[in-house]
Amino acid sequence: MKKVLIQLDTDPQPSAFDSIVALDADVDALLRYGGVSAEAAPEIVRDAFFTRGPGELATIAVWVGGSNVPAGEAVLAAVQGAFFGPFRVSAMLDSNGANTTAATAVAKLAAVRELAGAPAVVVGLGAVGVRSATLLAREGCEVTVAAIPASRFGDDYRTPRGLAVAREMGLDPVEPASEEELEELLDGAAVVLAAGPAGVQVLSREVWSTNPTIELLADYNATEPPGLEGVEAGDDLVEREGKLVLGAIAIGGRKMKVHKACLRRLFESNEEILEVDGVYEIARQVV
Amino acid sequence: MKKVLIQLDTDPQPSAFDSIVALDADVDALLRYGGVSAEAAPEIVRDAFFTRGPGELATIAVWVGGSNVPAGEAVLAAVQGAFFGPFRVSAMLDSNGANTTAATAVAKLAAVRELAGAPAVVVGLGAVGVRSATLLAREGCEVTVAAIPASRFGDDYRTPRGLAVAREMGLDPVEPASEEELEELLDGAAVVLAAGPAGVQVLSREVWSTNPTIELLADYNATEPPGLEGVEAGDDLVEREGKLVLGAIAIGGRKMKVHKACLRRLFESNEEILEVDGVYEIARQVV
Amino acid sequence: MKKVLIQLDTDPQPSAFDSIVALDADVDALLRYGGVSAEAAPEIVRDAFFTRGPGELATIAVWVGGSNVPAGEAVLAAVQGAFFGPFRVSAMLDSNGANTTAATAVAKLAAVRELAGAPAVVVGLGAVGVRSATLLAREGCEVTVAAIPASRFGDDYRTPRGLAVAREMGLDPVEPASEEELEELLDGAAVVLAAGPAGVQVLSREVWSTNPTIELLADYNATEPPGLEGVEAGDDLVEREGKLVLGAIAIGGRKMKVHKACLRRLFESNEEILEVDGVYEIARQVV
Repeated sequence: MKKVLIQLDTDPQPSAFDSIVALDADVDALLRYGGVSAEAAPEIVRDAFFTRGPGELATIAVWVGGSNVPAGEAVLAAVQGAFFGPFRVSAMLDSNGANTTAATAVAKLAAVRELAGAPAVVVGLGAVGVRSATLLAREGCEVTVAAIPASRFGDDYRTPRGLAVAREMGLDPVEPASEEELEELLDGAAVVLAAGPAGVQVLSREVWSTNPTIELLADYNATEPPGLEGVEAGDDLVEREGKLVLGAIAIGGRKMKVHKACLRRLFESNEEILEVDGVYEIARQVV
Repeated sequence: MKKVLIQLDTDPQPSAFDSIVALDADVDALLRYGGVSAEAAPEIVRDAFFTRGPGELATIAVWVGGSNVPAGEAVLAAVQGAFFGPFRVSAMLDSNGANTTAATAVAKLAAVRELAGAPAVVVGLGAVGVRSATLLAREGCEVTVAAIPASRFGDDYRTPRGLAVAREMGLDPVEPASEEELEELLDGAAVVLAAGPAGVQVLSREVWSTNPTIELLADYNATEPPGLEGVEAGDDLVEREGKLVLGAIAIGGRKMKVHKACLRRLFESNEEILEVDGVYEIARQVV
Repeated sequence: MKKVLIQLDTDPQPSAFDSIVALDADVDALLRYGGVSAEAAPEIVRDAFFTRGPGELATIAVWVGGSNVPAGEAVLAAVQGAFFGPFRVSAMLDSNGANTTAATAVAKLAAVRELAGAPAVVVGLGAVGVRSATLLAREGCEVTVAAIPASRFGDDYRTPRGLAVAREMGLDPVEPASEEELEELLDGAAVVLAAGPAGVQVLSREVWSTNPTIELLADYNATEPPGLEGVEAGDDLVEREGKLVLGAIAIGGRKMKVHKACLRRLFESNEEILEVDGVYEIARQVV
């Protein structure tokens, strides 16, 4: 019986990336949907649960992707709302790659240092930043989540939405008014994650290299300039300025393994719902 | 050479149900199209007939589905209009699952009782009801097709469209003004099919159980409450109140086998056109 | 690792023809996109380059098709614009089948006669005509490209767009005002290609059969009436009226082999870009 992945994408065209990775994770058939809303999702998936017997529903799974994380969350919730007794399938959310990316980075950090009790600062309130903060908190870090100071942009990245999302996730984000205020937040930090958008330098080398307590740094930005000045995208927990640093390509390479492991997990039962926590559990095993 | 099914769906998103069943019936590749109109269909299929030699066109077939039966019928007709000499492929219509569902139910009834000459009443003028009535008539039943009394709804289900469609199919539908009038229609009936919409009880247990002539009852409604009070969806021609009753899940399970048998038939030649009659012939063999 | 073809179609629905031929050329998985614009194309393909290592990108390719050749050219350019260092894949343009069709016909002519120095006339300024003229010129023909005289239509086929496209391709198209002027253009021609639209007779038998210098004729029109009166679509370089003639079905059959050979070529490296020249090189080997 062919393993079927129903790919629900909230963008107009379904992601080729998600499709190819699914094929590489042994999915036999893709049913690809673009422009999927939470309203339309139940209609798309509901009948599928009746094509195979309840004992065979581990052969069907739902993938939710796209560039809009809240839209993806709403689609995943709508899919779960269509479950009916034993008529349910495993499903995973990875809009914007945020779950697999954050889970991979934090798992890599957790593999080299005990995180419980460690003061951590995540700079950047995008989907990856918020998820990273959530995972660090679950590992026992004392997490500070900070918006990027407006002076770093000149744009509106540090939006109310990022703050609201962080608060919904149980975080208490702070808004440093200046780079000096951001620097003060790093006082005593052991772990620092730069989760800014492409093209924005979050911290200068001067700032992070002279901080005496920082031990671990990670940067999610794969394009030039890096979010952490002086960190190379390929740095895979190498030592720079006396600290262990992790670059975006080193995260991204391992993320592919996590992504595929998650897909395979979906087909082990019809009851798996993989959001950030479930993905992280798998990342801890794979990384 | 891969068996290719061109799936034309009149709904915006192509049905995952139809796709998965096709894969389970050994289709190798699906070319899925949503939002297909009769105007667009010939353009989609025409070139496909020239990809493989005329002697190899049994390896390509067209499936027409979606929730709108008249739209599906128009698409199937448009596909046939694009045939050009030997450049043609087999095609099937199963919008709303109506053909496979009605064919399966009637075939199951025909397997346990000679239908020729039997008075039959179909209550409900949806696609499944109308097709069931057509098939019962072909088996020689004296068929009465009745709308569901408005008192059962409070809505407009008993629409002019249902009446018009039934008339186009050569049936002479009646509109009972009350439940008493509907009950009178059952006088002398041997076979009764409830083909109402989800959530509408078509007949009370009191009505069908006290009717002295009814021998066979079938209910297409899989959700609570059943269309026939007291019938369980899983009833597979079991005896209740001295009558043989057939529930929606018992129909649905067997429908899956009919559906797959039809798909396999499409790939036996390039000349099969499966509408209600062709599907019924297959159902009689499979059920 | 599955061979994946990302099919970008500029028409609303992706071509079933292109999909089936790809499957027949051993593509394992199709990612089909309809309604693709040059603006949207980079977004669709970019991430795909990061799913597999740079050393494995020969397993992914991009196909650009649809009925609009300039739109297809823009999409192909946009795809190439998304390449990033080693992160690139092979790609091919065959909007309207124009590249494979013109390349096949010219390759068949080149196989039976030395074309260098031969006077050639292409009648018709559609995509296939313009590409044929380009290829004949590259083979060393003295090419005249002519619009079809308006008297043959009564419509606006001989549009400014056709003239403009021909000029952009470095050709110098002429516009015969009458059939007599067209006939004069054939004086001294050795090779004549009729590249008119379906249903338009480009030259009467009288005209081409009495011309003393014409040796080779080809007609791209597969439907009645033929573009060259008296030529049968199946004529595969057979002699008629003392000339070798090539009909549309004889071209089309061989075109399928060229089309599949091109697809296979795409998966031999991640650096092939097949437009008319690249397709022609393959056609010379296959025909």
